[in-house]
Amino acid sequence: MDLQASAYTRSFRPEDEAYGWDGVETLAYKEEGSAPFRAVTRQVLFEEAEHGCQLRYFEVEPGGHTTLERHEHVHAVLVLRGRGTSLIGEEVREIGEHDLCRVPPLTWHQFRAAEDAPLGFLCLVSSQRDRPQLPTPEDLAIIRRDPSVAAFIRV
Amino acid sequence: MDLQASAYTRSFRPEDEAYGWDGVETLAYKEEGSAPFRAVTRQVLFEEAEHGCQLRYFEVEPGGHTTLERHEHVHAVLVLRGRGTSLIGEEVREIGEHDLCRVPPLTWHQFRAAEDAPLGFLCLVSSQRDRPQLPTPEDLAIIRRDPSVAAFIRV
Repeated sequence: MDLQASAYTRSFRPEDEAYGWDGVETLAYKEEGSAPFRAVTRQVLFEEAEHGCQLRYFEVEPGGHTTLERHEHVHAVLVLRGRGTSLIGEEVREIGEHDLCRVPPLTWHQFRAAEDAPLGFLCLVSSQRDRPQLPTPEDLAIIRRDPSVAAFIRV
Repeated sequence: MDLQASAYTRSFRPEDEAYGWDGVETLAYKEEGSAPFRAVTRQVLFEEAEHGCQLRYFEVEPGGHTTLERHEHVHAVLVLRGRGTSLIGEEVREIGEHDLCRVPPLTWHQFRAAEDAPLGFLCLVSSQRDRPQLPTPEDLAIIRRDPSVAAFIRV
């Protein structure tokens, strides 16, 4: 790895340091208390005006989870490291390194890291996008009709 | 890994199989003879109309290289596996797993895999983009003024 600063490259940190990129800020996943989640961070890797989209890296700590939510915009996900389980629609599925997931519009989804491994994933979204919706009690009643989904979700 | 088909997930193949994703076609990098390159494949991972951009995976075999070219559109690159060397502008730099590179508009660039390792990287581009330009003899004379760049490029 080159140690001098680069005009074009952000180096990934060596293995013995915190997982992430030099010069890329680690942000809160969401504002605390705004939605139910646990142990998730967010880093914006690329956002170009001409692309009209944003590439983010989310990392869920072992045992943590993202928010159960849905929205009009599409999520394109690539697991960068670790493993866990995804809920997309009514599909609960184990996911691991480099798996691809597509979350269609208005589809309930949640990602959970394994108990003994983090789940780190890239997520591509449109820069212009609607705000996530949280499930109402009525939504939850419907979502919970499937026993495997009911057992999976954290709200 | 779940073996049943998924409506939302494309599983990355196990380590003992060809590097890639089930259900994602491996394409030629470019039409043979259209530009100088060696041992590169291309896979389109995501392209959503609402995103307006395309996420591709390129794999350069050990000793191979992409085309030396430039264009108006921006490349956002994340190395997914392996290692190699990038030329961006006048910067020749070793790159490895998870490093990020940004290729600004009209900037000459080329990627080479190490002799003993592949270089696999994600590349995010706008769906609407200009065609790459190849260097003219006059461009090459200017590009070669820097000895480290002259030693790096393959044309």
